[in-house]
Amino acid sequence: MTHYSAVTEEVVEDLKSLVGPHNVAVEPEKLASYSRDEVALQFWDREYRAEVLVLPESTDHVSAVLAYADPRMIPVTPRGAGTGLSGGAVPAFGGIVMAFDRMNRILEVDLENLTLTAEPGVVTAEIQAAAARHGLEYAGDPCSGDASFIGGNVAENAGGNKVIKYGTTGANVLALEVVLPSGKVTWFGGKRRKDVTGLDLVHLMVGSEGILGVITKVVLKLVPRHEKVVDLLVPFPTIEEAITLVPRVMRELKITPSSLEFMDRNSLRIVSRYTGSTLPFQEAGAHLIIQIEGNDMDALSDQYEDIGDFCLENGALEVFVADNRNFRDLLWKTRKNIAEAIIVFYTKYAKEDLVVPTGNIPSLLKRVDEVCRKYRLEAVNFGHVGDGNIHVNLLAGEESENWQERIEGARRDLYRSTKELGGTLSGEHGVGLKRKDYLGMFLDEAQVELIRGIKRTFDPNLILNPGKIVDI
Amino acid sequence: MTHYSAVTEEVVEDLKSLVGPHNVAVEPEKLASYSRDEVALQFWDREYRAEVLVLPESTDHVSAVLAYADPRMIPVTPRGAGTGLSGGAVPAFGGIVMAFDRMNRILEVDLENLTLTAEPGVVTAEIQAAAARHGLEYAGDPCSGDASFIGGNVAENAGGNKVIKYGTTGANVLALEVVLPSGKVTWFGGKRRKDVTGLDLVHLMVGSEGILGVITKVVLKLVPRHEKVVDLLVPFPTIEEAITLVPRVMRELKITPSSLEFMDRNSLRIVSRYTGSTLPFQEAGAHLIIQIEGNDMDALSDQYEDIGDFCLENGALEVFVADNRNFRDLLWKTRKNIAEAIIVFYTKYAKEDLVVPTGNIPSLLKRVDEVCRKYRLEAVNFGHVGDGNIHVNLLAGEESENWQERIEGARRDLYRSTKELGGTLSGEHGVGLKRKDYLGMFLDEAQVELIRGIKRTFDPNLILNPGKIVDI
Repeated sequence: MTHYSAVTEEVVEDLKSLVGPHNVAVEPEKLASYSRDEVALQFWDREYRAEVLVLPESTDHVSAVLAYADPRMIPVTPRGAGTGLSGGAVPAFGGIVMAFDRMNRILEVDLENLTLTAEPGVVTAEIQAAAARHGLEYAGDPCSGDASFIGGNVAENAGGNKVIKYGTTGANVLALEVVLPSGKVTWFGGKRRKDVTGLDLVHLMVGSEGILGVITKVVLKLVPRHEKVVDLLVPFPTIEEAITLVPRVMRELKITPSSLEFMDRNSLRIVSRYTGSTLPFQEAGAHLIIQIEGNDMDALSDQYEDIGDFCLENGALEVFVADNRNFRDLLWKTRKNIAEAIIVFYTKYAKEDLVVPTGNIPSLLKRVDEVCRKYRLEAVNFGHVGDGNIHVNLLAGEESENWQERIEGARRDLYRSTKELGGTLSGEHGVGLKRKDYLGMFLDEAQVELIRGIKRTFDPNLILNPGKIVDI
Repeated sequence: MTHYSAVTEEVVEDLKSLVGPHNVAVEPEKLASYSRDEVALQFWDREYRAEVLVLPESTDHVSAVLAYADPRMIPVTPRGAGTGLSGGAVPAFGGIVMAFDRMNRILEVDLENLTLTAEPGVVTAEIQAAAARHGLEYAGDPCSGDASFIGGNVAENAGGNKVIKYGTTGANVLALEVVLPSGKVTWFGGKRRKDVTGLDLVHLMVGSEGILGVITKVVLKLVPRHEKVVDLLVPFPTIEEAITLVPRVMRELKITPSSLEFMDRNSLRIVSRYTGSTLPFQEAGAHLIIQIEGNDMDALSDQYEDIGDFCLENGALEVFVADNRNFRDLLWKTRKNIAEAIIVFYTKYAKEDLVVPTGNIPSLLKRVDEVCRKYRLEAVNFGHVGDGNIHVNLLAGEESENWQERIEGARRDLYRSTKELGGTLSGEHGVGLKRKDYLGMFLDEAQVELIRGIKRTFDPNLILNPGKIVDI
C-alpha cells in the first residue's frame, strides 16, 4: 500500500472551510502530541507524525472530512484519548488525525430501554458515572477508564476488569453510528439486545481499530447496579496455586466474580516504589483480587466466606476482606497503577497483552522467566486472570545495549510460546502498528486474506488508519 | 446470481467417493425432508429441493465436498436440525444439502477453562445436559433446544429465553472451526474470553446463516450453574402494564432476571386447546414469566418477594411463585408449546420475529391489532420481552381467500411500523429466504453493499447457501 502525502496548504484551507478554522490545527507541537499513544516513543523505528489535526464537532463534520479525503486518498487516522497500547492511533502514513475531543456529549440515558447513547469522545468514567446516577451500570471497565474515550474503547474492544462477568466492551455495545470512508453516515444495530437482520456489522466494527469506519455515536447497554461490592485480596505462595483456584471458584462454589485480577511479586514491588504503599504479604508469589457483588449483604458475606475458606484450604497465605472503601481503594490503586509505575521507572520496555487458556497461565509465566533470563530482561506480570489475559511487561533496565533487539527477541519467543499454549497475540490492547508483523504467526493466510477483503469492502481507497492490523 | 444445476450422476458418484456411499442420498423422500425447515410449505411460491444430500462424518468430509463443489459452482446449503423459521436451510438453488446429523459428538468439556467443544450436529439440549453434569451451564437456550442443533443455533445466532442475562448464542461462542468454500479449514477464536487479534471473525460467522463458511466445531463458554431457580407467573390486565414493569424491575429492584417472557391472551387460548391445561387468570390481557436464579434460597426468596410486591403495586392481578417442579413445568410447557400449537391448528400463517426497543412493545402490539383488523387475520403474540423480541404470529383462519396476499400485506405494514418504532426485522429467526425481500427496508443500501462485499470475500464463487439474506 502506498499513500502519497496530499496535505498541501490548500487541503488545510479546505478542511478549515469544512469544519471551521478553530477545529483544524497544524502547529508542530499539537501535531506531535496527537500523533502518539501510550506506546513508548523509543519503541518505534521512526517518528510518525500527522500532517493536520482535525477536531470534528459533529457527525456532519466527520462525514464532510471523509468525503473530502476519500477521493483524494488522504490517510485519516481516527483517535480517542490516545491511551492505546498498540500504536493504533499513531498516523503511520501521516495525513489527517481526526480526534474526538470535541464530540464529548452523553446524548441520552434511556431508562425505559436501559441504554446510554454517547458521542465517541466521552471519557469512559463519565459514562460509568452517568449510569450510576440512575442506579445503573455500564459494565465496560478498562483500567484506563479515567482517561480513555468510549470511542477508543469500542474501536479497540477494550477489555478490562469485569470481562469475566460482563464481557468486553463489545458485549456492552448495542448500536453504532458509523461514517464510512465515502462520507456516508449509517447505523449498525439499534436499541435492542437481539438482532439477526443481516450480518453482525456492529461487532465487526468493535475492535476493528478504525480501519473500517469512523464511529460517531455509541449506544451502550446498561445493567442493574449492584448495591454491595466486596473485594478480597488473597496472597498465594506461588502463581500456580493462585491460577489453579480460578476455575474452581466458578465451578465448585458456583460464583462468577465480577473481577478476578492477578499481580505477581514484581508488580507489587514496582507499584510500591511508585505509590509508596504496600499490600499485606507484599513478597508473596502472587496476589489475587476477587471481587463479588450483589444486593444482599448477608448473601454476599456467605459468598466471600465460602471463597475465603476455599482459598485457605487451597494454599492461600491469608484472605483479606475489603468491605470498606479505604482498603478497596488501596487494592485497586495498586492494581491500576502498575502500568503507570512501569512508565515512571523505565523508558525501554514492551507492554504485552497475551491471552492463553486460563489453565495455561502458569506455563506461560514460566516461559516468561526463561525468556527474560535469555535476553537479560526483567518482567512484571499482572492482568485479568479470569479471562486468561496477562499483561507481560518486558523491561530493559540498566543494561541498555541492544535493548531493542533483546526485547524483540523476547517478544518473538514469547509469542511462539503463547501460540503453542493455545493463546493469542492480544486480548485487549489490539494489533495496531506494534503487533502487525506478528499477526501471521497467529492467523493463517486464509484469515489474513479475509481481513484484507473486509477492509477493501469497507474502505476501497484504503484511507482509514492505514498501516494497522495488516498490510494490504 | 445464477447457478446452473450441476448435480449430474457423475457428481453424485464423485461425492460418494469423497465421503463414502452411505453418506450420500438421492432418494426423493429423503431429499424432500432435508429440503424444508419449519416455515410452512404453503408459505413458499414454489418447491425448493436439494439434488443430493450429503451427511459428512468429519471436518475432512466437509472440506473435501466444498473443495469439490467450489470450482464447479455447485450450491451447498448447510443444514442443522431443520428447526429454523426463516427458510435458512432451504436449498433455494438446489445442489447439495449438507446436513450434520452424523457430526454429533461432544468432543470435550474442559473443566479448567470452562468450555465445551462440540460438533455442529449435537442437539442443544444435550449440550446443556453435558454442562449440567459438571455443575456448569451452557446459557444458550432457544425454545427449540430439544431438537435444534448447536451448529444451527450458531449459524442463526439463536436467542431464546436467557438473553436478558446471558446474551444470545453468539455471546456464548468462543471459537469456531470453519471450512471456507475453497475447502480450507481454519479456526476463528480460541479458548479465551478476550481476543482482539485481527477482526472479530467469530462473531461475523455467528448469525451469518451459512453464507460465509461451514461451521464444523464450536467452542462454547460455560458458566456456573445456579442451584436455585424460581419462576414467577404474573398476570396483568393489559399488555402495557406488563411491559412497563420490565425495565423498572431491573432499574429499581436491581435484579436481572434470567428470563422475562411474555404471552398474550391469544397465546394462552391456543396453547390451552393444544395442551388441555390452563394457567391461572387465563383470560388476563398478558402474562409474564419472570425467572430468577441464585445459590442462596433466602436471598432468592427476598428477591421474588420484592418482585412480587412490586408487580402487585403496579397493576398485577396476582403473583404465582413456581418454586416447585410441577408448576414450573406447566409454565414453561405453556410458553414453549405456543409455536407448536399454531402449527397444529393453522396451516396458513406467518411467524414473525420482530424486535423493538422494549418500551415500544405496547405500541407495536397496538399496530398488530390494527393490521389484523385491516387484513382479517388473527394474531398470537408472545416472546422475550426482556430483550424487545416479540413473536407476532399472523394467522389466516377459516377465511382462506387471498390468504397469502393478506398475510403479505400485514407483514409489509407491520415491518413498516416496526421500523418506525426503532425496531428491526428479526431478532433470532434470521432473514433467510423468508425475509430477504424486506432487508432493504431496514438496512440502507450502503450496508447491504457491505454485506455483499463480505459475502464475496468469503465465498467468491457464491456456492454457500445461495439466495439467503441478500441477492448478490
